[in-house]
Amino acid sequence: MRTVDLIEKKVERGELTSEEIAFLIRGFLDGTVPDYQMAAMQMAIVFNGMTDREATDLTMEMMHSGEVVDLSDLKGVKVDKHSTGGVGDTTTLVIAPLVAACGGTVAKMSGRGLGHTGGTLDKLESIPGTQVEIPLDRFRRIVDNIGVAVIGQSGNLDPADKKMYALRDVTATVRSIPLIAASIMSKKLAAGADAIVLDVKVGSGAFMRTREEGAKLATLMVEIGRRVGRKVVAVLSDMNQPLGLAVGNALEVREAVELLSGRIPEGDPLYEICMLLGTKMLRLSELAESDAEARAKLQAALQSGAGLKKLQQMITAQGGDASYLCMERIDALCKTKEVVPVYPTKEGYLYAIDTERVGTAAQLLGAGRATKADAIDPSVGLVMKKRVGDRIRKDEPLCVIYSNDPKKTAVSIETFLGAMTISDEQPEKRPMVYDVIGDAN
Amino acid sequence: MRTVDLIEKKVERGELTSEEIAFLIRGFLDGTVPDYQMAAMQMAIVFNGMTDREATDLTMEMMHSGEVVDLSDLKGVKVDKHSTGGVGDTTTLVIAPLVAACGGTVAKMSGRGLGHTGGTLDKLESIPGTQVEIPLDRFRRIVDNIGVAVIGQSGNLDPADKKMYALRDVTATVRSIPLIAASIMSKKLAAGADAIVLDVKVGSGAFMRTREEGAKLATLMVEIGRRVGRKVVAVLSDMNQPLGLAVGNALEVREAVELLSGRIPEGDPLYEICMLLGTKMLRLSELAESDAEARAKLQAALQSGAGLKKLQQMITAQGGDASYLCMERIDALCKTKEVVPVYPTKEGYLYAIDTERVGTAAQLLGAGRATKADAIDPSVGLVMKKRVGDRIRKDEPLCVIYSNDPKKTAVSIETFLGAMTISDEQPEKRPMVYDVIGDAN
Repeated sequence: MRTVDLIEKKVERGELTSEEIAFLIRGFLDGTVPDYQMAAMQMAIVFNGMTDREATDLTMEMMHSGEVVDLSDLKGVKVDKHSTGGVGDTTTLVIAPLVAACGGTVAKMSGRGLGHTGGTLDKLESIPGTQVEIPLDRFRRIVDNIGVAVIGQSGNLDPADKKMYALRDVTATVRSIPLIAASIMSKKLAAGADAIVLDVKVGSGAFMRTREEGAKLATLMVEIGRRVGRKVVAVLSDMNQPLGLAVGNALEVREAVELLSGRIPEGDPLYEICMLLGTKMLRLSELAESDAEARAKLQAALQSGAGLKKLQQMITAQGGDASYLCMERIDALCKTKEVVPVYPTKEGYLYAIDTERVGTAAQLLGAGRATKADAIDPSVGLVMKKRVGDRIRKDEPLCVIYSNDPKKTAVSIETFLGAMTISDEQPEKRPMVYDVIGDAN
Repeated sequence: MRTVDLIEKKVERGELTSEEIAFLIRGFLDGTVPDYQMAAMQMAIVFNGMTDREATDLTMEMMHSGEVVDLSDLKGVKVDKHSTGGVGDTTTLVIAPLVAACGGTVAKMSGRGLGHTGGTLDKLESIPGTQVEIPLDRFRRIVDNIGVAVIGQSGNLDPADKKMYALRDVTATVRSIPLIAASIMSKKLAAGADAIVLDVKVGSGAFMRTREEGAKLATLMVEIGRRVGRKVVAVLSDMNQPLGLAVGNALEVREAVELLSGRIPEGDPLYEICMLLGTKMLRLSELAESDAEARAKLQAALQSGAGLKKLQQMITAQGGDASYLCMERIDALCKTKEVVPVYPTKEGYLYAIDTERVGTAAQLLGAGRATKADAIDPSVGLVMKKRVGDRIRKDEPLCVIYSNDPKKTAVSIETFLGAMTISDEQPEKRPMVYDVIGDAN
C-alpha cells in the first residue's frame, strides 16, 4: 500500500477501505506516513469529505491509537457530555453534579481549552486546590463513591487525535465535518463512556457557523455512535450570543453556583440548555422514562440543593476548597483590581453579537490562552448585562468587566464594543435549541 | 504573514497576492514554510485552482528561485520547444537540428525523464560519447557556432520547481493545471528562451487525459508567456497512440535519423508534428513570413540533408560519435540479444491503444526508469507495426520487441498486448492536432 495512492483515491472521490484508514493512521503515528502526506490527505478530505463508514473507521482507528479507558466495573450507565465549544458555556459545572445527584454516573474527561476562554478544566482550577490531573485509579474511585468526577484527559488517550489536530491547526484543515466528528467521538469513546450527549453549538461564537453545518456534524456523530453501539444524542443549540451571562473562569463558576442555588430562573438560556442536556443524560442513563420525568428530577435536585452539594463533594474529592461554592463566599474568587461597567455608544436594540469577539475581549483580560504556554488569570472576565433583542439605553451598561490591569481593560472594552451591533430595528427572536438529533423517543 | 492564513485564504477561494506567493515560495525554499504546509497549499490549489495572475506570479517567483540563464549576447531569437511528455516522441531530435539548419537559434535545456521511456537526454546519451552535462559557457559556444545544442538543466535552475515537484509527486498533487503550467514555464523562462513552442499532448499516454484539460493548460501557458513578454505558441496534439513508431532510446534516435534522411513520408504523424512545431519555431524566430514558407524551408533542409548534417554537428560538438547518425550505421546502436515480433491474439481493427501501457512495456525492457536510481538500457524498446485504425491479421505482428533479457521480453509482451484493443468495429479517425493556441497569425 502506498500513501500517495490513498491520497489520489481521495482526490478522485474514492472511498478509503478500513485497511487503508488503519494504514494511514498507524503510519502517521509511527512516522512512516510523513506529515506532508497526512496534510495533503486532510486537505483532500476538507474538499471531498468522507462517507459515514469512513468516518466511523477513522474514529475507531483513532480511538484505539492509545489507551482505552475501561469503566465497565463501575455501576450504571456511564454517561458523558461534550460541547463543541462556545463562549460563556458553563453547562458541565451545572449538569455533571446535577445528573449525579439524580443517580447518574458521570465520569468525564475534558480537554484543555485553547481558545477565547478557558475550558472546563480551567474553570475547575479557578477553585483553590482543585486538581484535574488525577490518575485513573483515583478518578475511578471518586466516580464510584460520589457518582461524578471531571478530570483532564490522560496523556496517552487518543494520541492520533493530538498529532492530527496539531497538523490540522497549522494547515487550515480544521473545518472538516468528518475530521471534527472523528476527533470528538474518538476521544469520547476512548474515555469509556457508554452514552454521550453532545451539545453542538451553531453561530457566531461556534465552530459551526451555520445551522446546516451544525446539523451535518451532529448527524454524523450520532451515526458514528450508532455504528459502534453507543447511545448518542446531539442537541443543536444557538451560539449567536454567549450562553450564560458570565465569560471568564471564576465568573462562570459563580454563575454555575447561582444556577445550582436556584438563583437563575426557568426560561434563562443557560438554565434551559442545562435542563435539556441533563434530561437527555438521564434518559440515556435509563433513569427516567420520559423527558418530563427527567426534567422534574433535575429540578427537584436543584431545588433541594442536592446538585450544589454534589458539586461541593466532587470538588472536595478532587482536592479543592468547596467552601467557596456557595452564594455567601463565591464572590471571593471573582475579586479583581477593577470592576468597570461598559456603556453603549448609542441607543436602540441589541441587534447582534459577534460572540467570538466577546470571547476575545475576555481573553485579552487574561481569561483565555492565545498560546499553549499562556497562564490564565482565573478571576478576570466579563458579565453581560444585556441579551440580543434587549432595549439599549446610554445609562445602562452592556456588561461589566473584571480586570487586574487597566491597560488590558481599555483594549478589552474596545474589542467588546466592536462585538455589539446596536440598531433601531429589533432582531427576530431566535430559538435557543434548533434540533435534537438521535433522540430515540 | 502566517502560512496557515494563506492556506485558509486559498481554501476559501481567495486570490493570493504577489507578496503572499513570494512569501510562500521563498519560505518553502529556505525552510520557514514546512513541507506539510506546502503540501496542504498545493492540495488546496488542486481543488480551487489559481487565477492567471496568481499562476504568472508563481511562475516568476519559481523562475527567480535559482539561476536565470542570460542568452541575450547570442544572435537571433533564441527559440525553445517543450513537450508535455508522451510516448515515442522523438520530435526534439528532429526539429532542433532542422530549425537550426534553417537559421534558427535553438538553445535547449531538457529535464531528465522519469517515466515510461527515457527523456531527450537519455536518447542523446544512447549515441556513444554524447555529453549532456555541459557547462553553460561551452553550451553557449556550441549554440553560437552551430546554432543548436541540447543539454541537461543546470543544477541550480529553478530549485523551487525541483522541491515543489518532489513534494507533489508523493502527495497526489501533480494534476493541477496552474501548478503544471508554472512548473513548465518557470523552467523555460529561467533557461533564457525568447520564444517557446509548446507541444501539449492529450490522450491515454499523456498527462492531460482530455482535450478540454489540455486546452486549459495550453491557454494558461500562452497567457503566462504574454504576461511576462515572451512569445509562446502551444500546439494541442493527440497522444492516444505513440507519436512515432519507435519507443526506446536508440530506437527513437534511429527513427529521427530516418526522418532526417527522408525515409518517412509526409502525412506520417511524427513527420507532421515535427513540421508543425518547426513551422511555429521558425515563425516565432521571424525566419518565415507564413506557415507555408516555414514548412517549405524545413522540407528543403530535410531533403538536402542539411538537417541530418546539423544533428551530426551538434552531436560532434557535444562529444558524441556522429558517425552512427546515418542510415548505414544507425542499426548498430539498436543491437539486442533478441528481436521478437509480437502477434495479435485475434483479428479485427486496432480500435484503441493504452499508450501509457505501451510505454510501460518498453520500460519493463529497461528503456525507462521506475526510480531515479535505475540505469537505462539504450538499445532496448519496441517498434510499432500497426497504428490505430489498421486492419489486424494474425500473421502480421503488432510490434517488434528489442530485448536483452528473455524474462523481461515475456512480461513486456504481456503488458503490450494488454494495451491493445482489437475490435470488429473500425474506430473513428482522430485528428493529429486538435488546436494551435496563441498563434498570432
